[in-house]
Amino acid sequence: MGKSKADGMLDRLGLQVVGGKFQPGARLPTEEELVRRLGISRPSVREGMKALVRKGLVESRARRGTVVRAKECWDILDADVLRWVAAGPPDYAFLISLIELRSIMEPAAARLAAQRASPAQILAIERAFRGMVEALPQDIEACHRHDLAFHEGIFAASGNVMLYRFYTAIRTVLMTLFRASTEARESYERSLDEHGAVAAAIGRRNPESAESAMRQLLAGTVRDLEPAFHPRQSSGRKPKGGSKR
Amino acid sequence: MGKSKADGMLDRLGLQVVGGKFQPGARLPTEEELVRRLGISRPSVREGMKALVRKGLVESRARRGTVVRAKECWDILDADVLRWVAAGPPDYAFLISLIELRSIMEPAAARLAAQRASPAQILAIERAFRGMVEALPQDIEACHRHDLAFHEGIFAASGNVMLYRFYTAIRTVLMTLFRASTEARESYERSLDEHGAVAAAIGRRNPESAESAMRQLLAGTVRDLEPAFHPRQSSGRKPKGGSKR
Repeated sequence: MGKSKADGMLDRLGLQVVGGKFQPGARLPTEEELVRRLGISRPSVREGMKALVRKGLVESRARRGTVVRAKECWDILDADVLRWVAAGPPDYAFLISLIELRSIMEPAAARLAAQRASPAQILAIERAFRGMVEALPQDIEACHRHDLAFHEGIFAASGNVMLYRFYTAIRTVLMTLFRASTEARESYERSLDEHGAVAAAIGRRNPESAESAMRQLLAGTVRDLEPAFHPRQSSGRKPKGGSKR
Repeated sequence: MGKSKADGMLDRLGLQVVGGKFQPGARLPTEEELVRRLGISRPSVREGMKALVRKGLVESRARRGTVVRAKECWDILDADVLRWVAAGPPDYAFLISLIELRSIMEPAAARLAAQRASPAQILAIERAFRGMVEALPQDIEACHRHDLAFHEGIFAASGNVMLYRFYTAIRTVLMTLFRASTEARESYERSLDEHGAVAAAIGRRNPESAESAMRQLLAGTVRDLEPAFHPRQSSGRKPKGGSKR
């Protein structure tokens, strides 16, 4: 995690590209410039650049150097890219895509968890829920952590490695989403019952009610984010689709 | 794609790890051994190893060298890892996870496509469908290509960048799935109507029927794969969940 010089450079450039300092079509500094500016070796610069290419953020063009690619080419399920997105200024179109994807994946994960969770996995989900209850109202940050463990527990209990991998890819962004709720304390107080209903349905091994309880929980998430979204500034194509599915 | 020596080594080792030549817990050859055996430079070996670490396949352990990690740690949504899985001997548990994930993502993508597809995107989906019809019965490989374009078109038309990225991650594996159908020609003849129904529902902009037509199409995919699956050898936990959702 960000230990070598190449990783440090990668992080720095990745954040700048994703954060919009270099817009799609813009040219990145040359290898020579980066060696000089950042005081790191040429092989480290090359290694960092290769990683940016692999993640779909930039490409080499003949006689133009390294150029930022269109957003559609970015590997948006890559954990680094997601971390950079989460660290940058809020990107509403991206957040809406994420919420929409959660509204597709998580009710399905809850349904599968109700079918397949081991007793230990059910306990882990219930423990995370109790952790949320106990952290309120004083320790919002601890509540976020238990909230994350709650969702992780459900993905793990789904028994599908690809679904679980999706969770590990989005976990950093999920934390950002939790923090973006305009009034986290109130929103948690409203949503505790919704979390409890999901945990209870999984514990009763009722797939239908686990799925619908998760839909309700996510609809609440959208409701709590709405003030932060300035819906009038969005493209107007996506905002509602996600919460309704 | 696989041009440098480091990439070549990465591919070779990745295939061996994913294909089971090195089992979880096994130690990989040392840097020195790889330099000698593969005749490539130490920096190239190091770069390849770092990529394997990043993809979650291996980790460095003190005094033990580089060791293969448990399967749950692999970055199963990484395009290289998926390509290696697709190239190796069939991994039924993995294929079942993939089919299950498709049965979660694709009906949702079809529903969104019916709501959001541009006229050009609808044409692209219809063109891919006609390509499938025209390729049969003589050119199965061309039919696979149009089939892939059909699913790509639907993900693209969903208007969700993260859903589309999921498609680009699984496209190689999808091709393997198409080829794994025991009798591709018969299975296509049965499934053409199902593809046509999805395309028509998106063209009519009917989200409910697009979603349910896609569910039917995927149920057919599972039916055609079943003989290849030897269901009695599987863990008995997952086989049915996927097709029913």
